[in-house]
Order: sequence, then structure tokens, then C-alpha cells
Amino acid sequence: MTTTTTNATSQEPPGLTELACIAPQLAAVEERFARELASDLESVNALVKHVSRFRGKMLRPTLLLLAGKACGELVDAHVTLATVVEMVHMATLVHDDVLDEAELRRRGATINHLRGNEAAVLLGDYLISHSYHLCSSLDSQLASRAIAATTNRVCEGELLQLDNRTNVALDERTYLEIITRKTASLCGTCCRLGAHFARAAEDAQARLELYGLSLGTAFQIQDDILDLVGDAPTVGKTLGLDVQKGKMTLPLIHFMRTAPREHRALLRALLTERDPDRAEKIRNLILPSKSIGYARDKAAMLVKRAQDAIGALADSEAKRVLGLMAQFVINRPM
Amino acid sequence: MTTTTTNATSQEPPGLTELACIAPQLAAVEERFARELASDLESVNALVKHVSRFRGKMLRPTLLLLAGKACGELVDAHVTLATVVEMVHMATLVHDDVLDEAELRRRGATINHLRGNEAAVLLGDYLISHSYHLCSSLDSQLASRAIAATTNRVCEGELLQLDNRTNVALDERTYLEIITRKTASLCGTCCRLGAHFARAAEDAQARLELYGLSLGTAFQIQDDILDLVGDAPTVGKTLGLDVQKGKMTLPLIHFMRTAPREHRALLRALLTERDPDRAEKIRNLILPSKSIGYARDKAAMLVKRAQDAIGALADSEAKRVLGLMAQFVINRPM
Repeated sequence: MTTTTTNATSQEPPGLTELACIAPQLAAVEERFARELASDLESVNALVKHVSRFRGKMLRPTLLLLAGKACGELVDAHVTLATVVEMVHMATLVHDDVLDEAELRRRGATINHLRGNEAAVLLGDYLISHSYHLCSSLDSQLASRAIAATTNRVCEGELLQLDNRTNVALDERTYLEIITRKTASLCGTCCRLGAHFARAAEDAQARLELYGLSLGTAFQIQDDILDLVGDAPTVGKTLGLDVQKGKMTLPLIHFMRTAPREHRALLRALLTERDPDRAEKIRNLILPSKSIGYARDKAAMLVKRAQDAIGALADSEAKRVLGLMAQFVINRPM
Repeated sequence: MTTTTTNATSQEPPGLTELACIAPQLAAVEERFARELASDLESVNALVKHVSRFRGKMLRPTLLLLAGKACGELVDAHVTLATVVEMVHMATLVHDDVLDEAELRRRGATINHLRGNEAAVLLGDYLISHSYHLCSSLDSQLASRAIAATTNRVCEGELLQLDNRTNVALDERTYLEIITRKTASLCGTCCRLGAHFARAAEDAQARLELYGLSLGTAFQIQDDILDLVGDAPTVGKTLGLDVQKGKMTLPLIHFMRTAPREHRALLRALLTERDPDRAEKIRNLILPSKSIGYARDKAAMLVKRAQDAIGALADSEAKRVLGLMAQFVINRPM
């Protein structure tokens, strides 16, 4: 491992070097995660093992730990809460994969594909239950209350999104409401709790929460852009799912507001018809327009807002990495 | 409403008259339930309204309140927790209805049938999230920790059950392990928490928990008997689902252990083949055997254990109704 951090670019995710200041805590989160989910039932352990397949960037634990480190000292509660938010996030991923039968066939080896919808539902429930159980081991109810309030909002965001499926007339305000609740709120809570347990003042907690909310919103916009126009091998996951699920995202919403009438009619037809090539046709329709650029600008503006929110914090390695992370969110390879 | 309680028989569920001692608190639970689930999003409220369809006997809130009343005074925490356990129970019902596509077609208007699997998953998540949120409004973490430990066990029971689906060789010990975790543990926790928040001594809390565990186990055995040999219009719900889902229940397990070899071979064939009339054929095979009686005796023994567990409590109306409830569990109309 090298000690210099100057080679980091915002195209690379903050890695081992940048995260050195929270490395011991991140390792402790991994260990706590596995320990808390262990059961005396072998069959349960076998199913939980599948979850490791989903483990990814640990974005939420990283945000929580960096926010804490940027405000003061990390304590054991930070590791506990970082584990809690990772479990919450995993639960939402597992439940997101419970799809209607038609979509099931198009997906790869998700839990529901491997073991049926019921296993996926139960595994998500197992994760969320363990997250609350772990959270309630802390001394005060503050974090439990904040985490549960956040999962209330996440569920509302998901329900609002479901309710607007195939709503070609979805407006930008409602779209932002959906992604703020379903994605950004957990990032905001991570940062606020990280700051709180580092004994930050309310003012600093609020700044960190705004940082997390802004970063989370930008992250989701970028995710939606990638789903529409990204290159699957580069992004590393199946793309085009939003269109298949009838989800209107920011570029499409902008297009429906600004494109020439005949282009809008074409998009509307593609979104409502069951054309197997519609993802590619929509991509080809949107790419020459200004709508991808519009969504990118919006995400960049949110990244700026995130970085500004933590501007007043005392300089530290953690603060610097928080800034890098915000930038990385919108510079992920397409 | 009459003031005499002498007409109550154990064939009737404890009703308005028997539950008079906890009537104000039960009404408060109904109110709290609706208030806590209200959202600022209309579409979320519309979906939550469907849940009221599932509301039934309020068994778990009733157990919690009666356990408290049998040990001392009811306080606001009892109403809060009774609401919490009803939400937890509703969440498990909603998620139980997320079935594989084949079974979807055989069911009535469950949430997943009306709105798709994803809506059912999200609605269950919304309920469980709100239950934890409400629970974390109490002063101490004790209840949050106990509820989450219980939902951990409920999930394990469900996962163990799923893992043994179509396992014709399931043994009685594992069956009891499954139903203790998935059904009885929440009843036990209801009774323990009811007693705890009425400031009962640890000894009384343990007795109430044993009462709840025993009652809950008897309840599930009786439910499994009804699913196998009950009369659908009398029971008031679709029956035969266990066989369709490949769930081995106590009468079947006993049959596979004790019936003549050719009968066992017949049952095994019926359980593994996709015969559309298999529920009726299995019923006709089991009814003349001793296996229903064996399961009934087991449930009756557990009811006796429940009643014995609270024998040492000071006499009270609440204690009397707890005794009636245990009896009712196995005397429900077939």
C-alpha cells in the first residue's frame, strides 16, 4: 500500500489509499455484518451467504464513518451504525429484486431467481430485522428512531415510484421526491448519525445531512443516466431496466417537456408498447437531444451543493475524501 | 351490551363482553394503528387502506394488553406496543401472500393479486418499518430490542419452513421448531412485554411468556389442522394451502410415522405429484387415521400448559379471559 494519495482521480472510486483514515472501522463493519447475521440454523446461513454476492462499494458505511471522522473521533457506535445501514441497504436491494413473473425471466441469478420470490422476501426481512436488532443494542433510542424514520421514507419513495410506473407524464418535482426519499434520505441519515456520534454540534450535523442528501440525489440521477445510456460491460450491471419497468427518469422527463412534438410522441409510443428493442430505440432517440446533458448538469449542481455543505468544516483527510466521493458519484465510467 | 359474562363458551372467541377490561386500550390501538401509518403521500395511503382488509381478531394486541392487565396497571406503553405487534403481524401476513406465480392464480384478492408482488413486498416493508419507528418512541430500548429479536426468530422460522418445503420426511421436532419461531415467539413476546410494562417481577414475566409461547404453538397446530380438514365456509378462509405449498404439518408428519406402509406411499405420492384434487384426496386419506386426533391432543396439551403457566397469578378478570383465550384457540369451529 502506498502512502501518497495524490494519484487519486475522480474517475476512480475512493479506494484503499483514500479510505485509510477509516480502514480499521470498515474492516470491523465487514466482521460485524457477518457475525450479526449468523444463525443457529444451517439453512438460514446458507441463504444469507447468497447476500454476500450483492455486497458492493459499502457506500453508506463509508459515508457514515467519514462523516464521523470529519467531525471528531470514531467510536464503537459508528461501527454498529455503519453495519446497520449496510444491512438496511442490502435489504432494499434484495426486495428490489422481487419482480413480477414477466421480469423474473429477463434477470440473472438474483435471489428470487435462484430460490423463488418467497426466499427473496424472507431474506430481505431477515436483513431488516437484524438491522433494527443491532441498532437497538445502542444506549439510546436516538439512532433507532432516526433509522426507522428513514426506512419509513425509503418505503414511501418506493411506493410512490411504483404508483407512477408507466406514468409517462411524471413531472420533475415528483421524480425528485421519489429519489430523495428512496435513495438520498438514507445517505443523509448516514452522514447526520456519523456526525452526531462524533459529538458534532447540531449545525454540523445538519450540514453533513445536507451533504448526504445532495450526494445521494446526484448518485441516483447518475444511476438513472447510466441505466439509459451507459455501456453495460463498463458499468458492470444489466442496464435498460428502468425502461423495462416503466420507470420515468430525469432525462426522459426532460425530453417529454422539451423535445419536438413528434419526438415526444415517438418516446410515448416506445414507453407504452412492448417492443423488445425499445431500450435501444429510446437510447438512440434521447442521445442526440439535450436531455442527458440536462440531467448531468442537475447532478453536477447537486455535487457542488454537497461539497459546499461541508465547506465550513475544519480541514481533514476525511473532509477531503468526502469531497472526492461527491465528485466520483457523477464521474463514474459510462 | 350486556354486563354478564356467564354466557361465554369456549366455542366463541372472547368478544366485546369478555374484553371489556381492556376495551379502551383496544380502541386506542385501532386509532394509533391508523394514525401511525398515515402518510403525506396519497398513493401510499390508498395502498395502506388495503391492509385494513386483513385486520382480524387483534389476537396479539389482546394478549399483550391482557397480560399487562393480569399483572398490574395498563399504561400508554402498552397501547404503543400493542400497536407495534399488530403492525408486525400484519407485515408477516402481507409478505406471506407474496407467492410464486402458480399459487397467485389460485388465491383471492390479496395485495399481490391486486397490485402485484412488488406492492405487497413494499407494503409489508412499510408496516415493519413503521412498527420499529413506533417502538423506538418509547423511553428505553428494551422493547425495541425484544421486538427485533422476535422478528429475527420469526424470519428464521419462515426460512426454515421454506427450506423444508416438499420435505416429506420432515420430523416433528423440526416442525415444532418452525412453528415456535414463526408463530409462537411473537405471542410469547407480547405476553412478556405486557407483563414487563405493568411492572411485573421477572418470574411473572417468564410465566406470561410461557403462556404466550404455549398458546401460540397450540394456535398454529390448530390452524394446520383446520387447513387440512376444516370446512372452508365455516373457517372463513381458503383451505388446503399447506398441501399446495408442500408444507408438512403435524397430522401429516404423524401419519408418515405411523400409518401402514401402503398408506404412507400413497400420501408421499399425493404430496409430490401435481394432482389438482390432491388436497381432497389427502383429507380423505388422513381423516380415518389417528393423526388428526394426535395433533389435537398435542394442541390440547399445550393449552393446558398455557393455563398452568398463569395459574399462580392473582385471580382477576384479565387472568380469567387469558384462560378462555387459550381454550378458544383449540375450540375454533371446524
